[in-house]
Amino acid sequence: MNKKVYFAGSIRGGRVDAELYRRMICHMQKTDVVLTEHVGSPELNLLERGRDRDADIYRQDMAWLRESDLLIAECTCPSLGVGYELAYAEAHGKPCHVFYDSGKTQLSAMLTGDPYFHIYPYRDPEEIFPLLDQILGNGGER
Amino acid sequence: MNKKVYFAGSIRGGRVDAELYRRMICHMQKTDVVLTEHVGSPELNLLERGRDRDADIYRQDMAWLRESDLLIAECTCPSLGVGYELAYAEAHGKPCHVFYDSGKTQLSAMLTGDPYFHIYPYRDPEEIFPLLDQILGNGGER
Repeated sequence: MNKKVYFAGSIRGGRVDAELYRRMICHMQKTDVVLTEHVGSPELNLLERGRDRDADIYRQDMAWLRESDLLIAECTCPSLGVGYELAYAEAHGKPCHVFYDSGKTQLSAMLTGDPYFHIYPYRDPEEIFPLLDQILGNGGER
Repeated sequence: MNKKVYFAGSIRGGRVDAELYRRMICHMQKTDVVLTEHVGSPELNLLERGRDRDADIYRQDMAWLRESDLLIAECTCPSLGVGYELAYAEAHGKPCHVFYDSGKTQLSAMLTGDPYFHIYPYRDPEEIFPLLDQILGNGGER
């Protein structure tokens, strides 16, 4: 309850799973705080904005990551940014939980091979939600 | 001359640019050492191999990254592994040079927004090779 979650999902790498990100974020927001709620928004601006404006995004995201209690990533769609965020979170000692659809993709060996990460392959997205409850410690009362 | 280069390119994220990776690696090998030559191979096994075998890949790649003098990444194809490697290289103080085709993709704000990275957008892959020579300090004698 009331954990601060950094949710990581692909933005410029591709928005094919944006609706799933939105559902995961909404589910966690029933009990906890998602610092990166915008990752699930269908109206997100995907364009590069020049290095100065992108630097504002970078600084804000890294501040949220340092402030967070844990990172939850949906990794079915490959993303440079999510890979970066996972390594940064690991370097800062944040627990990292990685979901991906094992029927759609092969996950990077930099993630499956790194024993630091908790990895959750799924076949049906509905498997994700009870696992989120477990990770966040939101048990029987719901 | 004789620098140790960690070349980063997408493997499980997609092999659409594998031939370009191979050309970049061959070019650098004329003067320098590329520790991750396999990234350009057309015969690379792309399948997950279980966490134990993937852990061997992860440990070997991170050992090469720590041993390298610099990282060169081709980032047109989004990749979780390359994003992870870039953050790891930054944390270890390795110079990082990032190439991408700006006509094909929007680069992640975690890369364009991070002032640590040297970023080289290109429109024609032929622009890459003289830049590699400059980065590696291989000048007029060639």
